[in-house]
Amino acid sequence: MTKLIRSWVESANAPDTDFPLNNLPYGVFSAGGSDPRCGVAIGDRILDAARMEADGLLECGGALQTGGWNAFMARGKPAWAKLRDALTKMLTEGSDRQDALRGYLVYQAEATLHMPFSVTEYTDFYAGRHHAFNVGTMFRGPDNALPPNWLHIPIGYNGRASSVVVSGTPVIRPNGQLKGPDDAMPRFGPSQRFDIELEIGAIVGQPSDGPIAVAEAFDNIFGYVLLNDWSARDIQAWEYQPLGPFQSKATATTISPWIVTAAALEPFRTSTPEREKPLLPYLAEPGPMLYDIALEVGLTPEGGVETVVSRTNYREMYYSAAQQLAHHSSSGCPMRVGDLLGSGTISGPTKDSRGSLLELSWGGKEPLTLEGGEIRGFVEDHDMLALRGAAMGDGYRVGFGSCTGEVLPARAVKG
Amino acid sequence: MTKLIRSWVESANAPDTDFPLNNLPYGVFSAGGSDPRCGVAIGDRILDAARMEADGLLECGGALQTGGWNAFMARGKPAWAKLRDALTKMLTEGSDRQDALRGYLVYQAEATLHMPFSVTEYTDFYAGRHHAFNVGTMFRGPDNALPPNWLHIPIGYNGRASSVVVSGTPVIRPNGQLKGPDDAMPRFGPSQRFDIELEIGAIVGQPSDGPIAVAEAFDNIFGYVLLNDWSARDIQAWEYQPLGPFQSKATATTISPWIVTAAALEPFRTSTPEREKPLLPYLAEPGPMLYDIALEVGLTPEGGVETVVSRTNYREMYYSAAQQLAHHSSSGCPMRVGDLLGSGTISGPTKDSRGSLLELSWGGKEPLTLEGGEIRGFVEDHDMLALRGAAMGDGYRVGFGSCTGEVLPARAVKG
Repeated sequence: MTKLIRSWVESANAPDTDFPLNNLPYGVFSAGGSDPRCGVAIGDRILDAARMEADGLLECGGALQTGGWNAFMARGKPAWAKLRDALTKMLTEGSDRQDALRGYLVYQAEATLHMPFSVTEYTDFYAGRHHAFNVGTMFRGPDNALPPNWLHIPIGYNGRASSVVVSGTPVIRPNGQLKGPDDAMPRFGPSQRFDIELEIGAIVGQPSDGPIAVAEAFDNIFGYVLLNDWSARDIQAWEYQPLGPFQSKATATTISPWIVTAAALEPFRTSTPEREKPLLPYLAEPGPMLYDIALEVGLTPEGGVETVVSRTNYREMYYSAAQQLAHHSSSGCPMRVGDLLGSGTISGPTKDSRGSLLELSWGGKEPLTLEGGEIRGFVEDHDMLALRGAAMGDGYRVGFGSCTGEVLPARAVKG
Repeated sequence: MTKLIRSWVESANAPDTDFPLNNLPYGVFSAGGSDPRCGVAIGDRILDAARMEADGLLECGGALQTGGWNAFMARGKPAWAKLRDALTKMLTEGSDRQDALRGYLVYQAEATLHMPFSVTEYTDFYAGRHHAFNVGTMFRGPDNALPPNWLHIPIGYNGRASSVVVSGTPVIRPNGQLKGPDDAMPRFGPSQRFDIELEIGAIVGQPSDGPIAVAEAFDNIFGYVLLNDWSARDIQAWEYQPLGPFQSKATATTISPWIVTAAALEPFRTSTPEREKPLLPYLAEPGPMLYDIALEVGLTPEGGVETVVSRTNYREMYYSAAQQLAHHSSSGCPMRVGDLLGSGTISGPTKDSRGSLLELSWGGKEPLTLEGGEIRGFVEDHDMLALRGAAMGDGYRVGFGSCTGEVLPARAVKG
């Protein structure tokens, strides 16, 4: 296991920071009335990478002047490595650039974080074995829980890029068509079973124009974010057959503000679990392409304290993002810079490692009791949900920051 | 019914042209080595609207200098009306601008057509009653043909914007996972049941950031294109449960090169059919929001002659694009300029009015015999498919041009 790389930014050496020098995640921030601009998290600060480029301290062909990381991603892997290398050298303890760089550091506490990149298209997968079994059991019964194709295909559906928002954005409870099994007709109103999904999103950093192999897919992924795929389970249950989830998943998908690069996660690679059925060759992984990332979900009721309702790990996934991207391209589907691939809900084998309230409360039948005594089947208005995650190194952690959203009451229904 | 508006461009007065002065559809063309640029079809010519704006003959705030119509759409309905009005005046028989404009006319035969706009996101609906019943019967049997939600929800799924191509782009037969009902394991190879879907695509021309009513949705639609949603039925059958179509629909979706505006189609508005079950208020149409557009599909085998395999009409749809857009926004899903909404396959009640080969050949069991004697269950390599459509006026037609694609053999599968 690699060690902490010490930085002259002292806060980056603290064992509990998400942003040691080993991480260097990319985000977009504004501070002091500035326009949103590219920055790099280091300890409790943000390095103003946009202004550094403008002042000639970094060379990225102007890509950092665009208010997002898409243009930089499009420059390709050698450019990715070059910037990371330059930043690492400049920020390492003992660097002679310390005085030159000090003026480019902004306190995170004084900055507002924005979407780190423009989401081109968004695809959500369903690649957690435990999640698929749990949900399948509730929707279709235990005998039909795992669909026949599940062990052969990293199943996914196209989501809605326009609804992806950055951490901190309030989420308005959706209205939609609701119909209980005994209702003669559907009605239109606020979702009563509004839920979260704990996921990790992979960001495509290189375009492809035809089928790509798993190894190439792995190389094309620029980095990862935490992702909460808000889901209205009652809308979903009525709408999802035969064409899949649509408005139940279109209200909002929240991502963490920092892109943790594949390079930073490199020491934490791990293998997907043993195959229960052999995969077709186009999905075979040539090496470990999943990551060991500890994850948790916190729920804070209005005016209350947080309860951690789930602890799990990204290594639970049955399919890696590289396998998902290879499958995504298998029909010839063009992939573009900024495409976001949700992993699917990350549930572990135990009850307290489930990644959605649907599973944690077993469809509301076994509500959770929170620290303050309140109970929860699904998300209530003004609940604050927070996802957190980090790969754990020896004396340091490569973290994502937090991915939060408060749920606001539904809009009034007219007519 | 409105009459032909005569133009000094003589070819625009021919009864069989798709592009009389009543139409004025918007596209993107290049000619003589130029960059792709905004143009307007009139008879057998294209008016170089981009150069007219650059020369001060049109005022669109520079929107026509962007190589696509998105920026113009974003300017809003008054700007849409103003340009249409200006073009109509300039091109009307007897206009004093005739000499000034002659130099801006390019023969369509000498131009290459490009994507008329950048597709922001693509959604495909399933709103044809006959199509849903036919396909449901084949996939799930006649008793479960129409899903329980179908008469209440304009069902749709998110498609893949990156795969939308302009008419004339060759389409490579996809590879994918295939599994017959009696196969123990899936295999990976070329789709054997590659199909077309005859649809009309609605283009969102104004953004919305929350639920919108059907009337507002109707106003937000800028125009329409023909749309062929290529579909690999065998890949679809194996992958589609429980999350809907994914790689079966991601190879290509072909659109016609001309955006026929809602303004041009205004005289051809018609109502959706009588409701079999009452709709929830958020989906109620305040007036006729569908259009009477005659449609046909031609199939030409390699080196052969064309057979028209289907004739149908857009008025067959159960839900209008306005209803689909209102439903799309009902969860709060933000809609953006350039979003493309496929109508769903447009099948009529009779066998020869079905909009897909799946239905026309009843899953391949009743193959079609083409003019030259060849038979077809699904699309064969080097078949050329052409969609055509026009609203029929009194002595003129408001047409879409054709929407064509030749199917090329699948890529070799490695490994």
